[in-house]
Amino acid sequence: MNTSPAPSVLVSEVGPRDGLQSIRRVMPTAAKLRWISALAAAGLKEIEVGSFVPPKLLPQMADIREVVAHALTIPGLHVAVLAPNLRGSQSAFEAGVHKLTLPVSVTDEHSMANIRKTTAQMIEEVREIVALRDAQFPGVQIEAGVSVAFGCTIAGAVSDDQTMRMCVAMAACGVDEVGLSDTSGYANPAQVRRLFRRLQTELGARAGGAHFHNTRGQGLANVVAALDAGVTTIDASQAGLGGCPYAPGATGNIVTEDLAFLLEAMGYDTGIDIDALVAARAILAEALPGEALYGHVPDAGLPKGFGYADGRTPSAPQPEGCLLGVAQ
Amino acid sequence: MNTSPAPSVLVSEVGPRDGLQSIRRVMPTAAKLRWISALAAAGLKEIEVGSFVPPKLLPQMADIREVVAHALTIPGLHVAVLAPNLRGSQSAFEAGVHKLTLPVSVTDEHSMANIRKTTAQMIEEVREIVALRDAQFPGVQIEAGVSVAFGCTIAGAVSDDQTMRMCVAMAACGVDEVGLSDTSGYANPAQVRRLFRRLQTELGARAGGAHFHNTRGQGLANVVAALDAGVTTIDASQAGLGGCPYAPGATGNIVTEDLAFLLEAMGYDTGIDIDALVAARAILAEALPGEALYGHVPDAGLPKGFGYADGRTPSAPQPEGCLLGVAQ
Repeated sequence: MNTSPAPSVLVSEVGPRDGLQSIRRVMPTAAKLRWISALAAAGLKEIEVGSFVPPKLLPQMADIREVVAHALTIPGLHVAVLAPNLRGSQSAFEAGVHKLTLPVSVTDEHSMANIRKTTAQMIEEVREIVALRDAQFPGVQIEAGVSVAFGCTIAGAVSDDQTMRMCVAMAACGVDEVGLSDTSGYANPAQVRRLFRRLQTELGARAGGAHFHNTRGQGLANVVAALDAGVTTIDASQAGLGGCPYAPGATGNIVTEDLAFLLEAMGYDTGIDIDALVAARAILAEALPGEALYGHVPDAGLPKGFGYADGRTPSAPQPEGCLLGVAQ
Repeated sequence: MNTSPAPSVLVSEVGPRDGLQSIRRVMPTAAKLRWISALAAAGLKEIEVGSFVPPKLLPQMADIREVVAHALTIPGLHVAVLAPNLRGSQSAFEAGVHKLTLPVSVTDEHSMANIRKTTAQMIEEVREIVALRDAQFPGVQIEAGVSVAFGCTIAGAVSDDQTMRMCVAMAACGVDEVGLSDTSGYANPAQVRRLFRRLQTELGARAGGAHFHNTRGQGLANVVAALDAGVTTIDASQAGLGGCPYAPGATGNIVTEDLAFLLEAMGYDTGIDIDALVAARAILAEALPGEALYGHVPDAGLPKGFGYADGRTPSAPQPEGCLLGVAQ
């Protein structure tokens, strides 16, 4: 019998940031705090709790300081935020976050539309943010989240070389980690495997995690490819919250509940209690009535006989199976 | 530049059988015929058009002879059906099908619940079906669809050895292909990769395709693992039709539209026109009002700049992307 511990994968929950930012209805602050606490209690070790952006641009994030302050009180939680520029980064550092993600587009087209800077201007901005961190906030981890790394809704196809050039530029700026983001669900598993392998070859220890959107239903398929390539940090959003308000059905990030099941079933230890995670959806359902909550595991439950990678067994009873017609 | 042709994968459409059999509302025969024609016109080369089962058990399949007769008029289409016993198989052979799938459970518990036979009795039945084929219908291909191969809703966990014993028994019966079915969405990619590799090692040319249900959202993730293991035939159902009528949200087979996108994006030639495939959903929407139609690609469209593995470009214009907040 194999007695070596299961390899672990860090599920980085981005629902309070990437999920909520795509939702027009502002989630009440008290509900956000309850939600973040419930996510952490379910075993999530890193949560991106919001963005430091002008409240006029994103009213959803107007309470970011209060949210960060609360998250910092949760023992053991790695508190991450996103900021698109130096000003937001300074505020994030001052708020005491553990990790800062900077969205850096591969294409000028997306960069201009998303943050009103060219890619060259953003590289300069990242350099200044890293200098500020180095000078005054040396403990904070900085990740470059390389957006539209697998294709761009505005510019179309993106070559591997184009993406890797931005990744190398980010490493040269001194960020700690460079992750690849499939902003609009363009990635396929062959591309994911290829790019993450190359990222590791070219960036070594600075190669970061995977951030997939489930726009075309390919999210977990791309996770399998990322795991093959040795990726150990994967972003996800509870209930796949987010997506595009103009395109009903175009879902947001990959669903944390389904990702946690995938990983644990494959033998990767995530530390997550899936039943507790599923229970946290009730907070969303109450605070965001009418918002679509995605995910299959919450509906189907865990399989009969399921065990976690670290040996735990589920707390909740498993639902009955379904038999109709002649099954295959 | 690589000028060798793209490797091809056969997408075997099972919606008219596995999808419809889980739906209580009987689809009118005329609509079934239109649907099957539309699927074939969209490039699907093999369609499982129904089951030969007693109409009392499955009223949905009462028109199976008419459906098969129509499917046989479609040039180039490989016409497949499912039958659970000798009697249904004889009827299928007489109807002139090209391929017959036999559902064979790994566990006695599922076998009894599904077809009221023990696994030993079913092995004997398969032997008789193969003998009948050999004696009177030598051109018909027989596939054993090994059910609950990755876990059973009644018996719980299933060992690799248990599944492989049934696969070897099926090969010994003389079936042409032995496929693995994840009847209730229990499979994970590590298990899929392991079992299909072993299937190929032990069965060689008789190793068959993959039949996944998307019950826990893991369908396409499991496809990636199956492709890794060299599988070249994958079952899917348009709109993920099917699932469990008692568990809303517990979806059916993997979605053909999303699978076709996955394969083509990865560089596998399927021969499918995804836009034409998506258009065929209208027939379902009209004939089965209120039935859930799943799939992400139908909502999101193909990505900008998308090209098929064989060099074709999409006929329909691509939808605009979505930008709200600060995207990663």
